[in-house]
Parts: sequence; C-alpha cells; structure tokens
Amino acid sequence: MDAGGGQEIEQLIRLLGRLPGFGPRSARRVALYLLKEPQTRLVPLARALEKAGDAIRTCSSCGNLDTLDPCHICRDPLREHAVVCVVETVGDLWALERAGVHRGVYQVLGGTLSPLSGTGPEDLNVAPLFARLEAGQVREVILALGATVEGATTMHWLMDRLVAYGGVTVSRVAQGVPMGGALDVLDDGTLAAALGARRPA
Amino acid sequence: MDAGGGQEIEQLIRLLGRLPGFGPRSARRVALYLLKEPQTRLVPLARALEKAGDAIRTCSSCGNLDTLDPCHICRDPLREHAVVCVVETVGDLWALERAGVHRGVYQVLGGTLSPLSGTGPEDLNVAPLFARLEAGQVREVILALGATVEGATTMHWLMDRLVAYGGVTVSRVAQGVPMGGALDVLDDGTLAAALGARRPA
Ligand SMILES: [Zn+2]
Ligand SMILES: [Zn+2]
Repeated sequence: MDAGGGQEIEQLIRLLGRLPGFGPRSARRVALYLLKEPQTRLVPLARALEKAGDAIRTCSSCGNLDTLDPCHICRDPLREHAVVCVVETVGDLWALERAGVHRGVYQVLGGTLSPLSGTGPEDLNVAPLFARLEAGQVREVILALGATVEGATTMHWLMDRLVAYGGVTVSRVAQGVPMGGALDVLDDGTLAAALGARRPA
Repeated sequence: MDAGGGQEIEQLIRLLGRLPGFGPRSARRVALYLLKEPQTRLVPLARALEKAGDAIRTCSSCGNLDTLDPCHICRDPLREHAVVCVVETVGDLWALERAGVHRGVYQVLGGTLSPLSGTGPEDLNVAPLFARLEAGQVREVILALGATVEGATTMHWLMDRLVAYGGVTVSRVAQGVPMGGALDVLDDGTLAAALGARRPA
C-alpha cells in the first residue's frame, strides 16, 4: 500500500502523475486536495473534464482546438482571412490570441520537422494552408515558429514551398524570440514585439 | 475570448487553475495536454476522478482518507493499535506510510491550533483518541506534528491533556524535522530518523 488506501485513489494519483509538470508528490498533493472536499472540488472538476471532452473539436481549417469546427477564429468575419500566421502548436495559437497581436487567422502545424524523431512533412497539418494558397485566398503568411533547430528547419522547408506563390508576402517573427525558446512561454509584450518587427523571410 | 474557444474549455482551465501549485499557465498547459487526446488522456482522468469521488471515505476512527471506514490501517490486525501517532494532515499520514516507519495507528487532527485563524480545540479531530485513552486501549502516543508555531502550540495543548493518563508514554518526533518545515515534504530517511529518535515529551 503506497498512498494510504484504495485502488481508486491509487489510480487517480497514477493518472495525475502523468500530467505535464507533475511528479508523484504533486500528484498526491492534488489528489488529497480534491478528495478532502469531493463535492466542491473533485465533482466539479470531473464534470468540467467530461463536458470539455464531449465538446472539443479540432478545427478542420486551421487545427485549433475549439468547441466549434470551423473554430471561432476561422468563422469570425472580422478577422483578416488573407493573413495566415503559421504556428507549431495550439498552445502557441492561444498565446498569440491572449496577447491579441494577430488580426488574421492561423495554421497550426501540430509539430515541427525533425529527422531525429521521424517527423516528416506528411506529419504536419499544412494541407489546408496550401489549398487556400492554391485558391488565391492568402495575401500574407507569417511564420511564427520557435527559435529552435526544428523550428528553423520547418521554416526553411515552408519558405521553399511558399516561393511558388509569387504574390504572397512571407514574413517571419524575428525580434524577441530568445534562442532555444518556444513561443508560448513568452509574455504578451515580447510576442507583440516579435510580431511587429517581423521581416520578409 | 481568452483561451481560444468555448466555455467548456474555459471552465476546465478555470477549475484546473484552482488546484494547489497551479497558475493560469500550468492550467492551460494541462488542459491542452488533455484535450489533444481526449480518449486516452481526458476520459480516463475524468473516470478516475468520478470513481475516487464515489469511493472516498473519511475514517471515523483516525481521520484518514480511504475507500474503507474504518480505514485499512485501523482494521489491520497486524498493526499495534496501542501505539497512536498523532499527525496534522492526511498528507502527513501518507508520508509516514510511504516511509514505512510507523507500525502503530494514527490520529489525524485535520489542522493545528491557531488563534490567528480561529482554529480551536473543538476544530481538531481528537475525540476518537481520547475515547480510546479513556478505554485504556492506548499504551503510547507519538506526537508527529510539524515544527511550526502552530504545531508547537498544538503539541503543548495535547501534552497538557495527556498527563491525565498516567500509564501512557507520550513522545514526540524531534530530530530531523527542520524548523518551519511540514512533515510531508521530508524524505523517508529523515522521517525514519525523526521517528526513531523520538524522546519523552
Ligand atoms: Zn480554425
Ligand atoms: Zn483509520
């Protein structure tokens, strides 16, 4: 007996321990917090998980996670649908939305090119972007990838493919993204500066 | 729109943000992790929460959280029921169980005396301990309270009440609990040393 009783409690601690940023200690701490007052803490969280799980959709247009498909960004008539910001993850998209620095739409790649981990172009969610480029619906592509080796590899691969679309401006976020840094840990001001100072790719 | 879509997602992030050790950033990170693969991540966690919430009981004897009442410790015939270790929280009990250093049973106070926060003797879960003392079922009481002002206040209040039971040995964990430290952040070796070097109170 490890945690003090019951396989239901042990299973909860085990699953909590798999969450990002969690270890056995934090898993036990959160389990205890929830189990001490089940009605006001545990039950509402279980319900919120269930509802979010039922409601979640992946936007077939941009790859965002939302309760709508297309997502609320892709269906917003006030956004500039001809300006597409390419990001690695949904977390990056959410970070840019919180900063409120991008008025266009997004393309979430869902990863980066990485020979080491075997992630190739076919694993990236880029088809919707190229379909819209083919249809002449895109005026500008902003590459907002992390300043990592994989981010740079992915950006150069994308730039090579984007030259085929002569009338499209391609830029990339430059200033403000620290070396080795991911986008979604940056503060709003840094994100705004990085996007504002973007330059032709 | 803050997180990128849907009140179900926002509600999940809000509830995750209330967990101990969480901030808005870690809440979003965990929500994204769960929502990216709902079937393998979110649904199992929701089910584990539900099952643990249904199964959880507070032991009417010692105050432990378990799926049984009395808990698996209180009903274990191999434990020394005449030796009672008094702790502040269920987390402390779990820490001592993980360390495997106590062969007796427990009394979980559920808090400490604190004039500032208005916690008085009537708020502590001590009645079962004194009932068992009255019935002559207790040979030794080990006070394993944190080395804080409130822990010391609680220990002295308990010692004053325990002198009435002449035949009962009262000891307290001494060596190894750092000043200002809580028990449940200590490593197993320190806990074993603190318990092994207990001295008469
Ligand atoms: Zn979308
Ligand atoms: Zn018990």
